[in-house]
Amino acid sequence: MRQSTIGAGRAGAALAALALSACTTTVVEAPAAPPPPAPAPASAETAMVPTVPMGQQWLYGSAEGAIAVRQTYGGLTAYALAKAKARPADSVIIDEATGKPFACGNKPLAAVFDADETLIWNIGPMRWFALTGKEFDAKTWDQWEKTGTGKAVAMPGAVEAMQALRAAGITPIANTNRSSANAAGSEQTLAAAGLGTFKHGDTLFLMGDDATGSSKDQRRATIAARWCVIAMAGDQLGDFRNGFNKPELPPLQRRALAMAAPYDKLWGQGWFLFANPVYGPSIRGGYDDIFPPETHWQPNQGAE
Amino acid sequence: MRQSTIGAGRAGAALAALALSACTTTVVEAPAAPPPPAPAPASAETAMVPTVPMGQQWLYGSAEGAIAVRQTYGGLTAYALAKAKARPADSVIIDEATGKPFACGNKPLAAVFDADETLIWNIGPMRWFALTGKEFDAKTWDQWEKTGTGKAVAMPGAVEAMQALRAAGITPIANTNRSSANAAGSEQTLAAAGLGTFKHGDTLFLMGDDATGSSKDQRRATIAARWCVIAMAGDQLGDFRNGFNKPELPPLQRRALAMAAPYDKLWGQGWFLFANPVYGPSIRGGYDDIFPPETHWQPNQGAE
Repeated sequence: MRQSTIGAGRAGAALAALALSACTTTVVEAPAAPPPPAPAPASAETAMVPTVPMGQQWLYGSAEGAIAVRQTYGGLTAYALAKAKARPADSVIIDEATGKPFACGNKPLAAVFDADETLIWNIGPMRWFALTGKEFDAKTWDQWEKTGTGKAVAMPGAVEAMQALRAAGITPIANTNRSSANAAGSEQTLAAAGLGTFKHGDTLFLMGDDATGSSKDQRRATIAARWCVIAMAGDQLGDFRNGFNKPELPPLQRRALAMAAPYDKLWGQGWFLFANPVYGPSIRGGYDDIFPPETHWQPNQGAE
Repeated sequence: MRQSTIGAGRAGAALAALALSACTTTVVEAPAAPPPPAPAPASAETAMVPTVPMGQQWLYGSAEGAIAVRQTYGGLTAYALAKAKARPADSVIIDEATGKPFACGNKPLAAVFDADETLIWNIGPMRWFALTGKEFDAKTWDQWEKTGTGKAVAMPGAVEAMQALRAAGITPIANTNRSSANAAGSEQTLAAAGLGTFKHGDTLFLMGDDATGSSKDQRRATIAARWCVIAMAGDQLGDFRNGFNKPELPPLQRRALAMAAPYDKLWGQGWFLFANPVYGPSIRGGYDDIFPPETHWQPNQGAE
């Protein structure tokens, strides 16, 4: 699915131009402003500081990204508080053994959150990777889990949401693929971000807690055995059901699966997806994967 | 604010690697999968097809992007239908002359939508620009406005939202910076996408309708004189108030302004922002613009 690395030369300049085209004042909608200068021609001698990736510009830097996050927290909080008043029979966690929701019974109310780019923005390492032109590096990330306390930022609306949920008797629980080897660092990171106490094994679940690795399904079952989970939040489909991330699923089929019954009723009504165009299994696909033939269009000669 | 074009060579490879790093199976949250192959070394001779920009992968190709859109449409529709039952005194359009909302009085109910990447996805030209390595090109876009009918796709949830609003007596109105010279093409484009009738001068407002160019403020005032606007939707701040897009505002100040009182109460409660990390004034900013010193972090030596 993934394209090979682009080389230097024209394709590199093209990608740079595209990054800048994403930066142009407007497609059709911005205030009148002078057009941006034409990009400098590509040259092997003019390597400069990399631009901030467009996903990071949008999510970490823009009003729009922050507003989108805050809107999602507002929707989640309103939904959860309403459900707390009219206790549901069903959890929003699906029992993968049966395909049906776990029953709530009389279990105490909870809401389950992914951590990275759901509760907190990991601006520290994401900036570092972009600035230094690195792929994701596991050793760097491991250091971040251990030492990022105080640098990981609570996402817009997250602190208020945690407060509102707790005040309504709903316990926030974090289910994250941060490593169980770094439990203390992650507990401290969440607390230092102002999000309150998440205690490993109680209200914080980590990769390594069971034998199923990066799948969160079994941890969700563990949580559902004890809690009536009325809302779940994440930035990628694995935060809801691991089966959505089957590696062989092309993007558009993955999308069709996740948006079909019985999941269609859950999005925004129990399952809350936070926009994250910075990283993850959503950032995938070549032209043929994303743009089927019926979407193809090109201008007539002379307009290029 | 914007970085210069990156050159070829290492920076080009770095940006490519970063684009691919966004494509790696996981930062911390995906199912266990083999690590991706190391990127090929950059070379002026190995120019290949550009990769799909990460913003397009997320918005146009991923489950997550589509879900985020559908969630926003769900929130907008629920809010608008509730307001229709308890008619508000105030519009959600601010009178820029006074800073206060326009009064609703007894005007008929309406909801105002931007069009591009709010009602429809302009996959045709956006794919073309990316594939051909072009910056946004006005002549190409003009052709698209004229001929894109049938190719512009209604965004997830948009058709259902238009139906629900109309059934509740709320008139959808499009306020877009598509050109008034191409009114027929844009009317047909929206109708062919299944979004119903938007009639220029009645329920469709375009750039060129008045003398204020790409600012939508005066068109909003024109709409508010006739309609009680109970909800507004867009993908960038100019879809709500032109003043948010003052060109000299650095990204973080722009964000602080838009999220401060009196606007803070509106986001998700009358004003609905659709995630669009593909283009627009949100895709802006260099490292120093987006990452103030307190966010800086780096791994200790040996972990790089």
